[in-house]
Amino acid sequence: MINEKLQEECGVLGIWNVGDFDTAETFYLGMYGIQHRGQQSAGIAVVNGKKMFYRKELGLITEVFSESEINNLKGCKAGLGHVGYNIESDNIRENAQPFIFKYYKSYAAISYNGCITNANRLRSEYLENAYMFQTTSDAEIIATMLTKEVAKGSSLEKALDRVIKRITGSYSFLVMTPEKMIAVRDPYGMKPLCLGILGASYVVSTESSGLDTIGAKFIRDVKPGEIITIDDNGLKSHLCDSYEKTAMCIFEFVYLARSDSIIDGAGVYKARFESGKILAREYPVDADLVMGVPDSGLPAALGYSDESGIRYAEGLIKNRYIGRTFIQPSQSLRELSVGLKLNPIRDQIEGKRIILVDDSIVRGTTSKKIVQMMKEIGGAKEVHMRISSPPVKFSCYYGIDTPDKAMLMANRMTRDEMCDSLGADTLAFISLDGLLKTPVGAKCSFCSACFDGCYPIKTEEDE
Amino acid sequence: MINEKLQEECGVLGIWNVGDFDTAETFYLGMYGIQHRGQQSAGIAVVNGKKMFYRKELGLITEVFSESEINNLKGCKAGLGHVGYNIESDNIRENAQPFIFKYYKSYAAISYNGCITNANRLRSEYLENAYMFQTTSDAEIIATMLTKEVAKGSSLEKALDRVIKRITGSYSFLVMTPEKMIAVRDPYGMKPLCLGILGASYVVSTESSGLDTIGAKFIRDVKPGEIITIDDNGLKSHLCDSYEKTAMCIFEFVYLARSDSIIDGAGVYKARFESGKILAREYPVDADLVMGVPDSGLPAALGYSDESGIRYAEGLIKNRYIGRTFIQPSQSLRELSVGLKLNPIRDQIEGKRIILVDDSIVRGTTSKKIVQMMKEIGGAKEVHMRISSPPVKFSCYYGIDTPDKAMLMANRMTRDEMCDSLGADTLAFISLDGLLKTPVGAKCSFCSACFDGCYPIKTEEDE
Amino acid sequence: MINEKLQEECGVLGIWNVGDFDTAETFYLGMYGIQHRGQQSAGIAVVNGKKMFYRKELGLITEVFSESEINNLKGCKAGLGHVGYNIESDNIRENAQPFIFKYYKSYAAISYNGCITNANRLRSEYLENAYMFQTTSDAEIIATMLTKEVAKGSSLEKALDRVIKRITGSYSFLVMTPEKMIAVRDPYGMKPLCLGILGASYVVSTESSGLDTIGAKFIRDVKPGEIITIDDNGLKSHLCDSYEKTAMCIFEFVYLARSDSIIDGAGVYKARFESGKILAREYPVDADLVMGVPDSGLPAALGYSDESGIRYAEGLIKNRYIGRTFIQPSQSLRELSVGLKLNPIRDQIEGKRIILVDDSIVRGTTSKKIVQMMKEIGGAKEVHMRISSPPVKFSCYYGIDTPDKAMLMANRMTRDEMCDSLGADTLAFISLDGLLKTPVGAKCSFCSACFDGCYPIKTEEDE
Amino acid sequence: MINEKLQEECGVLGIWNVGDFDTAETFYLGMYGIQHRGQQSAGIAVVNGKKMFYRKELGLITEVFSESEINNLKGCKAGLGHVGYNIESDNIRENAQPFIFKYYKSYAAISYNGCITNANRLRSEYLENAYMFQTTSDAEIIATMLTKEVAKGSSLEKALDRVIKRITGSYSFLVMTPEKMIAVRDPYGMKPLCLGILGASYVVSTESSGLDTIGAKFIRDVKPGEIITIDDNGLKSHLCDSYEKTAMCIFEFVYLARSDSIIDGAGVYKARFESGKILAREYPVDADLVMGVPDSGLPAALGYSDESGIRYAEGLIKNRYIGRTFIQPSQSLRELSVGLKLNPIRDQIEGKRIILVDDSIVRGTTSKKIVQMMKEIGGAKEVHMRISSPPVKFSCYYGIDTPDKAMLMANRMTRDEMCDSLGADTLAFISLDGLLKTPVGAKCSFCSACFDGCYPIKTEEDE
Repeated sequence: MINEKLQEECGVLGIWNVGDFDTAETFYLGMYGIQHRGQQSAGIAVVNGKKMFYRKELGLITEVFSESEINNLKGCKAGLGHVGYNIESDNIRENAQPFIFKYYKSYAAISYNGCITNANRLRSEYLENAYMFQTTSDAEIIATMLTKEVAKGSSLEKALDRVIKRITGSYSFLVMTPEKMIAVRDPYGMKPLCLGILGASYVVSTESSGLDTIGAKFIRDVKPGEIITIDDNGLKSHLCDSYEKTAMCIFEFVYLARSDSIIDGAGVYKARFESGKILAREYPVDADLVMGVPDSGLPAALGYSDESGIRYAEGLIKNRYIGRTFIQPSQSLRELSVGLKLNPIRDQIEGKRIILVDDSIVRGTTSKKIVQMMKEIGGAKEVHMRISSPPVKFSCYYGIDTPDKAMLMANRMTRDEMCDSLGADTLAFISLDGLLKTPVGAKCSFCSACFDGCYPIKTEEDE
Repeated sequence: MINEKLQEECGVLGIWNVGDFDTAETFYLGMYGIQHRGQQSAGIAVVNGKKMFYRKELGLITEVFSESEINNLKGCKAGLGHVGYNIESDNIRENAQPFIFKYYKSYAAISYNGCITNANRLRSEYLENAYMFQTTSDAEIIATMLTKEVAKGSSLEKALDRVIKRITGSYSFLVMTPEKMIAVRDPYGMKPLCLGILGASYVVSTESSGLDTIGAKFIRDVKPGEIITIDDNGLKSHLCDSYEKTAMCIFEFVYLARSDSIIDGAGVYKARFESGKILAREYPVDADLVMGVPDSGLPAALGYSDESGIRYAEGLIKNRYIGRTFIQPSQSLRELSVGLKLNPIRDQIEGKRIILVDDSIVRGTTSKKIVQMMKEIGGAKEVHMRISSPPVKFSCYYGIDTPDKAMLMANRMTRDEMCDSLGADTLAFISLDGLLKTPVGAKCSFCSACFDGCYPIKTEEDE
Repeated sequence: MINEKLQEECGVLGIWNVGDFDTAETFYLGMYGIQHRGQQSAGIAVVNGKKMFYRKELGLITEVFSESEINNLKGCKAGLGHVGYNIESDNIRENAQPFIFKYYKSYAAISYNGCITNANRLRSEYLENAYMFQTTSDAEIIATMLTKEVAKGSSLEKALDRVIKRITGSYSFLVMTPEKMIAVRDPYGMKPLCLGILGASYVVSTESSGLDTIGAKFIRDVKPGEIITIDDNGLKSHLCDSYEKTAMCIFEFVYLARSDSIIDGAGVYKARFESGKILAREYPVDADLVMGVPDSGLPAALGYSDESGIRYAEGLIKNRYIGRTFIQPSQSLRELSVGLKLNPIRDQIEGKRIILVDDSIVRGTTSKKIVQMMKEIGGAKEVHMRISSPPVKFSCYYGIDTPDKAMLMANRMTRDEMCDSLGADTLAFISLDGLLKTPVGAKCSFCSACFDGCYPIKTEEDE
Repeated sequence: MINEKLQEECGVLGIWNVGDFDTAETFYLGMYGIQHRGQQSAGIAVVNGKKMFYRKELGLITEVFSESEINNLKGCKAGLGHVGYNIESDNIRENAQPFIFKYYKSYAAISYNGCITNANRLRSEYLENAYMFQTTSDAEIIATMLTKEVAKGSSLEKALDRVIKRITGSYSFLVMTPEKMIAVRDPYGMKPLCLGILGASYVVSTESSGLDTIGAKFIRDVKPGEIITIDDNGLKSHLCDSYEKTAMCIFEFVYLARSDSIIDGAGVYKARFESGKILAREYPVDADLVMGVPDSGLPAALGYSDESGIRYAEGLIKNRYIGRTFIQPSQSLRELSVGLKLNPIRDQIEGKRIILVDDSIVRGTTSKKIVQMMKEIGGAKEVHMRISSPPVKFSCYYGIDTPDKAMLMANRMTRDEMCDSLGADTLAFISLDGLLKTPVGAKCSFCSACFDGCYPIKTEEDE
């Protein structure tokens, strides 16, 4: 089934365990806190003394790791995890992370999340300079660059300083050797990364949900451009590079992050709730009920209800078991199966004027089905679509899987055309200004390129 | 992981296809509409001419059926499906349904949901009368009885009449032969079963969600004690046995059924919402927010909010990926991993007096963790538990998996003791009278034995 | 790939362990001694106290049993195993044995090898008498009959006496309850079955290779019509039924049995060697070398060489890894791939006049390819085919998988036509009289129906 | 189970297909012709236009490739295959070949068989020079070196010339790009590699059995030090490096190669037969029968029989189903299970004086069991072991998996001690001079380091 949502590509998790935890089991559990960021591959690498053990494979965490495989990783003092989603359809097995390599002095593993925008140029440069590549992942580029710097005599941290000065893009990644773990966040702070503590262990995770899952206490976000080194002597940090204006991906707050996460000082759930309130002020409409498209539209729907005073109700039930299935129903069946993923509760909807809140419209195909379902099966009198993000008109070059620009509904149609096409009675999107106010308390500025085309970092196409 | 909820055991689905649908594919999709009723085994049997094909195996539908296996079942005119949950831990593979058997005249398949309360006596009687059993499922008892009646010259329907007079308990089941499909619902109407139509095909499903999933139109509930025969000449029905006072399982409305289902004239979602409203009237409390324990506590929480005027908010995020995992964390980890399945959103909760609505308390272990989490991690000032069903004090003998009576928290403790044990500030349960009013418009009376110990049907223990 | 050989259907193994062996592990190993008799399903049932545990599945022993599954069966005092090959292509999973059933007094498991010739009549009779069937295996018929007799008050042994008087056909089977194990061989002694001892344990196996594998000492063959009961008091035996003229399947000596087995007093290897000697006397030919088609043609080739004085040589290498593969090569490839399973050694063959010995010709397709390969790739000057069994002209109704009569090469053609069709220079088959002399020392007479159409036991077709 | 034989590590296969063959299917079949050289991993890479597709995984060919996976590789013009056996137990998944990499100009795949003796030094050198390694395979070293040379402007062939001058060791490998396929054999000709033709396609295979399997016609061996380039213009070749005295691994003739292969002009089967003849002349003994240990001891046994005039007979049956099983029987069972893999045929052996021919003795544990089995179970009067290779006293550094020197029986004991330890009546090994005469017609000289310790190529230990 084509995924109708913009899609995050990866999540990372690292634990440097100076106590006597059972790293592998803690790890396994912790990874459930980032599983929502990537469902195509999963991997864990651990160090034990001078040795590194790992397992990575295509699939969900539950599929990749059996109890005995976790046991095989036991007794280890530190670990690195990765969940991935991969745009490339071919040979993605080789791209599964952590990326493991032997370099001059030792072994290392990298768990990487993001998109290096000058990857092709760097790759070409290294190819011309007699290097080969075995995968198509950015992690291999970073490993290659690191290897080269370290061979010149640099420490790993110094090497990373130089690497970071040469790569542009949005990223956060972890490097683990038998001696230390290093966490890096891009200078624009586009990708989230945060630090926590569990007993005497440091934990680093893409989202704070990765900490919560294992009961680790959130300490702080890793700063844009910061390089944190954790070893048996504790934690050291320095800023490698920084910009006045950071550019955290605003879509993390719209849809990508788990709603219980806190990113750069702002609660994700609160931002989503807030977006509903702003929508209600910007685009009020007279109606009987406010409903959300589960699961991601619910917080904004509650906010809309709160602000407008119109009663919130649940009207669509999500099937929790569809998951990854081979179903590509024949056309005749597709028409019938509109209710496979979502099913309307008729006695909540019938005869009602409904404000239906969703987080975003990408291709528009799902939204169209939902409106049709609300009216034909649910018996809604009116359906007023309210979207808690502005129209998505531009592709992302920073690691979020967006369809071709030509496939984006908002790129092909005016709002009125979209409204007609969806069969809704009215349609409105939150303003970009409004959206940017939603991460209340955020200590960062934002990238909103998918809405306004203002790309904060040059892409190779630009050059 | 021990399941903390009462657990439904099975769901059934049948399609008699007089048109030219692709039965197997429609089936596959339809089964997602009943998957929530059983996640341990799945099976489909189809008839094509005089032959019957089937596949049944342990696992979820997505795991049991690959595309090629569905294709192998293609081109067939009728089908029977089953999802199962099985109390018996040994050799449950043999209990996977549909149960297939050859009898005097033909082949038949049975998909069965429920619990025959005089099963042991019947089984002994047949064993004494020179019959053997290859499984421990009730379906085999029914098949054995049917076979015997048919061999005496009865039609399948007449045979079923006699069988139904001899078995007591709560059940609904489907029998399929190459010539017809028969749907049976127990005379007390304890288990749900409903009838729909899809094009020129009749569809029978445990819940109306099984119809909705494939776009079939709901016609009506099968009546308690009704036997419906569907063949190429259409549909015939007769009442086999009936009682003035039916006894639909009230727990279907509390938790078991999917909330978009309509059972015996009453909407499940509406009933859950209503229970919240009644709770609010019966047990009001001054507080800042109403929250529900996801997913099953949400409708009642919304009802409570609606009635009390106290604002509804989301405060717990459910991890969608935990699913079936081998995790049995060590004690030290268990303490830490309180947030593995649910995680509180601190900025929704902190400093607030919260009314937390859940559908039921069984063992109490999960509720205790949740209250603790709300306070320690979420920072709630007060937690007032409101439960949308009365205290569960008695075991079910009618096919719902309940722990031993001794394990039921409400059987061991008074309400005050429970409140203390959970660490909540107050604790209240809806009254049984209140609960029985929630299935608004229901054309049936209810079994509430798990709450009051009034068992409408004798069990073998009684005798 | 179509199997070009007549195919045995099953093998059984039983251990009654009065000592303190680890039954499950011993069992697992023992089953490798009968694996050659069935590669489609494998199963083991064990008793431990009053309980019975089992696992049966489609596949080879190595595939069906992992170490942990064998461990799950540990600590048990007796066990029953089965390997199966199943003609029925549909739903063969349900036919996997041991067949497990609960009857009046207890539980029982049956491992069965053979073919009941009046199965259809018995099945009909039971269907008419109000019994149902869940599988298509003969084991279920026997279990049904046993159950009925036992319910009348018979002991299991008495019940078996009556069952055996009612079934005709070729069979050997084992019945295990928590109290005892019973071994039965058909009154004609068509199927082999033998008894051994391992420490203080009795072992029963279809072939003596099943004993040798675990170091059990061969005691004697089970006699035709004998019923042996083994329990904690030791071994008892009685003859249930017997015939003056037994009818051991001669094809066990030609191809089916493992060549290291000893059946009814005659060594299988020796019989095969002897058949080569007789062939050499009956059909001598002037040539340079004698070669055998591996693996089953080798002993007869050695015998032919020994008798004729013509040097024995190896000329065809068998690929040990082809096994069960999905290969159904396109026609063009099929022509090329003649050497996939067998490859000629050119410098052994080139320019030589070769006597090529094989055990049988069924469809003739493989033989044709081999002759072609010997000449075209190997460069043989002449190829003289010598077959160590008479022409197979009739189907077997006693449990050996034979193609339709119309597919049997010897049924469609004269010997000269066959020789032409195969492209051989000469072709000769051992005489039936000759073959019947090969099981030197055998204490039985033989069934040779596949060669001469003289069926010792009436089949349902006859009636 | 510990493998008691010296073990080959890999096999390679390549097809450059200028016609319109179905490369992937042909490939799949062809790989069965080299499967005996490696059973731990299998892989195929194909090129189609500018793209490269591949699949590689742990397991046998049948396990790694399903029909659909072969279909996914269809429509391709050239392919490269590999079967592997890997000494390293950790993370061998990453070492599965073909090794795929992107270099300056294009993509390439390498299938490699052998052992670079200066690998550690080269690896260190590259690590010092800022390269990293992701696997522990020699293929990655070669790819790294190639990449570097090509980046300097060399053609692939020129680059290979330089690579070959820097690596020492025994190897043969194939490099495939979308434009061409290159076959390389080490200058000492230690590893076999041969060239064939199939229609208009060139085929390269480690052994001629890989050609025969798909009906390709053998053209010639690749010469030591030769580099053959195949592209759409046909075949070009040049000698890169050569030595007067080549050093083909004599153990290929003793055990490693499939007996139907022809290597460097000598037939493997013939060599094994010849070794038996020479043994008979060197170490005659008065006896009744000559037997071989299946399968690898049979040709030499036939040769011994031929030369000595003592009758050849089969006395040990090999179980074809043991294969890869988890069995590690407890000690008590191990004693019993002596017959699991091999079983003696008592009536062939009993009371006889037997000359038992095997190809080699490594640890001696299996030989000891076999002698014991021949005597105790088979009833042999005398057992005279004759080994068709000299005592293995030295480890191989050229890619054959040998146990530690200390584990080699012939390194720890004199011949008399060995004979005593095995429980044989006499024991004799072919002389090295004798063995070196067995590859009749061979156009090469041989490496016999495992017998005499004369290592033709320096190893890193030497330095």
